[in-house]
Amino acid sequence: MNILILGGDGYLGWPMAMHFAARGHDVTVVDNYLRRKIATATDSEALIQGPVLEERVDIFQAIFNKKIAYRAGDCADMSFMNQVVQETSPETIIHFAEQASAPYSMMGQDQATQTLQNNLGATFNLIWAVINHAPKAHIVKLGTMGEYGTPNIDIEEGWIDIKHNGREQEFLYPRQASSLYHTTKVLDTDLLWFYVRMYGLCVTDLMQGPVYGIFTDESITDKRLLPNFHYDDIFGTVVNRFICQAVAGIPMTVYGKGGQTRGYINIKDTMTCIDIATHNPAREGELCIFNQFTQQLSVNEIANKVKEAADFHGLDAEIVSITNPRIEMEDHYYNAKHSGLTNLGLKPTLMTHDILGNLIDLVMNYRDSIQKQKTMPRVHWNK
Amino acid sequence: MNILILGGDGYLGWPMAMHFAARGHDVTVVDNYLRRKIATATDSEALIQGPVLEERVDIFQAIFNKKIAYRAGDCADMSFMNQVVQETSPETIIHFAEQASAPYSMMGQDQATQTLQNNLGATFNLIWAVINHAPKAHIVKLGTMGEYGTPNIDIEEGWIDIKHNGREQEFLYPRQASSLYHTTKVLDTDLLWFYVRMYGLCVTDLMQGPVYGIFTDESITDKRLLPNFHYDDIFGTVVNRFICQAVAGIPMTVYGKGGQTRGYINIKDTMTCIDIATHNPAREGELCIFNQFTQQLSVNEIANKVKEAADFHGLDAEIVSITNPRIEMEDHYYNAKHSGLTNLGLKPTLMTHDILGNLIDLVMNYRDSIQKQKTMPRVHWNK
Repeated sequence: MNILILGGDGYLGWPMAMHFAARGHDVTVVDNYLRRKIATATDSEALIQGPVLEERVDIFQAIFNKKIAYRAGDCADMSFMNQVVQETSPETIIHFAEQASAPYSMMGQDQATQTLQNNLGATFNLIWAVINHAPKAHIVKLGTMGEYGTPNIDIEEGWIDIKHNGREQEFLYPRQASSLYHTTKVLDTDLLWFYVRMYGLCVTDLMQGPVYGIFTDESITDKRLLPNFHYDDIFGTVVNRFICQAVAGIPMTVYGKGGQTRGYINIKDTMTCIDIATHNPAREGELCIFNQFTQQLSVNEIANKVKEAADFHGLDAEIVSITNPRIEMEDHYYNAKHSGLTNLGLKPTLMTHDILGNLIDLVMNYRDSIQKQKTMPRVHWNK
Repeated sequence: MNILILGGDGYLGWPMAMHFAARGHDVTVVDNYLRRKIATATDSEALIQGPVLEERVDIFQAIFNKKIAYRAGDCADMSFMNQVVQETSPETIIHFAEQASAPYSMMGQDQATQTLQNNLGATFNLIWAVINHAPKAHIVKLGTMGEYGTPNIDIEEGWIDIKHNGREQEFLYPRQASSLYHTTKVLDTDLLWFYVRMYGLCVTDLMQGPVYGIFTDESITDKRLLPNFHYDDIFGTVVNRFICQAVAGIPMTVYGKGGQTRGYINIKDTMTCIDIATHNPAREGELCIFNQFTQQLSVNEIANKVKEAADFHGLDAEIVSITNPRIEMEDHYYNAKHSGLTNLGLKPTLMTHDILGNLIDLVMNYRDSIQKQKTMPRVHWNK
C-alpha cells in the first residue's frame, strides 16, 4: 500500500512509518520539524531524540533494507500540501501533523494562534488536497479522547443516539475539550465530518488517549531509531514524566487531587490500532470513529504503578500533590467505550510492572540529563 | 453605552449601528468592505447599495445629529483587532464581521479557505483582543440557526440535557451544518465556549435565522441609509430573492421539493433582538445562547406568501421548482424553540402581506436593474 504520513518526525509518526515500511508498504513521511523548534524555544528538549529524518531514513534502510521517502515541508502551506498529495498519489494518509502540546497552546495569544492556524490549516489543506488529487484516499486522522472532555455520562465511540421528546437522532457525540490544543481537534472533527458529507471522503478519526512507552518492533532494534521521548511539562505525557521523575529522584508531581481519569494506550498498541484502521478503511462518505485506548486510569493510579515498578528497581520514588496548573475536574465520572478496535483484533498491552520496568531500565541510561525544572508546570491555564 | 460593531457595512451591521447611535449610544463601526469586494468579483452586486461608510456616517449625522465613528480595517488581522479594542474600550462588541455567503463558501478551495480564515480569524482575534484589553466587555456574536442543521428531534435553545444509561449531562446542542459558511459558525461557537470556560468571558451567541426586509426606524428615513439589499444567489436570502423575481416577472425558483423549513426573522426584529441581548448581558463565564427568529416557514410557504402579495400588486408571479444546487433535506422534521428573546420582550413582526407589500413597493423602483441570471443558482454543492 502507498502510505503518506504527515508529521513523520513525531513521537508516533516516526515509529508508524517504520512499522509500515518494515511490513512492505511504500511510505513517504512529511515534516517541518515544528515540534523540535517549539521544544528548543520553550526549553523542552526531549530526553531521547533521534537524528533528523534525513539521517534516520538511512539508518532504517541500513537495518531493514527498506526505503522511507522524506519530504520537508509545512502541511499548513496549501500549495505544498496539494503538491505532496498529487505527487505521491497515496491510498492512505495518516495525519499526525499537529502541534500536540496542550500546555503550549495555553501559553498566550501567539502560541494559541500558532496552534489554531497550524492544526486547522493542516487538516483543511489535507481535505482539499484529497478532494483535488486523491478523492478515494483513506484519511486516518489522529484525534484525541480529550475532545470529549469529562462528561457525567458514558462516552460512546464517536456518536450518540439522542432520544428527545419522543423522537430520535444520531449525532456526533458532543465534544467539550479542556485546552486549545484539544479544541483544535474538535474543530478538525467538525470540518472532516462536514466534508465527508459533502464530498464523500473516506475518513477514520481516532480518538486516542495519552500514549506512553517507546519500544516498538522496529524502534527497539537501534537506539537511533527510538522516537523522541519527552518528560517535560510541555510535550511529556504523564506516564513518561512520572518515570523520569522516579528515575531522577524527583517526587512525582500529581496535579491537584489526582482523580483525573483518562484512557491510556501503549505505543505498541498505537501501531496496531492504526494498522487495523488502515486495513479496515472507511467507506466513501463515511466518518469512522474509534476510541483508541486500552485502559482507564486515574493520575493517582498511574503514580502508584510507577512507584511500585520504581521501588522494585531499588529506586525510592515519592509522590506529591501540587497545585493544578490546569482548569479541569480532579474527581469525576469517567466511563468511555472502546470496543471498536478490539473487535477488529487489537490485543491490549496493559500497563504492567514489566512494561514500566523496561521503560525505567531505558531511562536509567539518561538519568543525568533529566532536569527537575522541566518536570514542573511552567504554563498555567488561568493566569 | 460604548458599543463596537464589527462588520458595520453589512446588511445588519449598518442598521444596527444607526439603531444604537439614534438611541444615544457611542458607536464605532469597523469594516474592510470584504462583502463588497466579493460581490464585485462574483457579479453579485446588491440591488440597493448605499454609499461607503465614510459618506454614510455623515448622511446619518446630518439627519439624526449623532456621530458614528468608522474605522477601516480587517478583523482577521490580529494587530488591527487588538488596537481597535484597546483604543475604543467597548462595553459591548457586536460581531457581524464574517463572510456570510453559504454559496460563496462552497465555490471552491480558494473561497473555502478565505471563508474559514476570515471567519475563524476574526472570532479568534476578537476573543484575544477582549482577553488582552477589555475582559469585562460583553461579546454579542451573530451565529446562525444553520449551525443546528435539520435534526430529527426538537432543536432546543443552544443547550440540551442528555439522559443516557441512567445518568445526565447538559451539552451544547449538537451542531451539524450544511455549508462551510455555516460550519465556520459552528467552529466559532466551539471556540467561544472554550474561552468562556477558561477565561470567564461574557458572551451571547445569537442563532439567527434567515433575515428579510430592509426597513428599520432609521433606514426608512432616507434611501441613502438603506442597508444593502441583495437578491442574487450568492448574498440574497430567499425572501428578498423571491420578491425581486416576482417584481421582475421571473418565476420564483424553489430549490427541489421546497419543503426546506427554517426560522425566519424580519430585519426590524433583528434590531430589537440585539438590543435586548445588549441590555441583558451574559454574566462572567457565561455563554448565553438565543435562537433568534420569529416564525418557521418552508420555502414553498414563503413562495406562496410572496406570490399572494405580488398578485395583490397586480404582478403575475409564478413559482417553479428547479434542481436543488445544494446538499440538504427537502422534506424533514423541524421544530426549533425560540422563547428566550420573546420572554425578554420581543414582539414578533410576522411575514404579512403588508410587510411583503412594502418591500415589493420599494423594489418596484429598482425593477429595471434586476438581472435574471443573478437569481439563478451559480454554485453547486457537489460538482
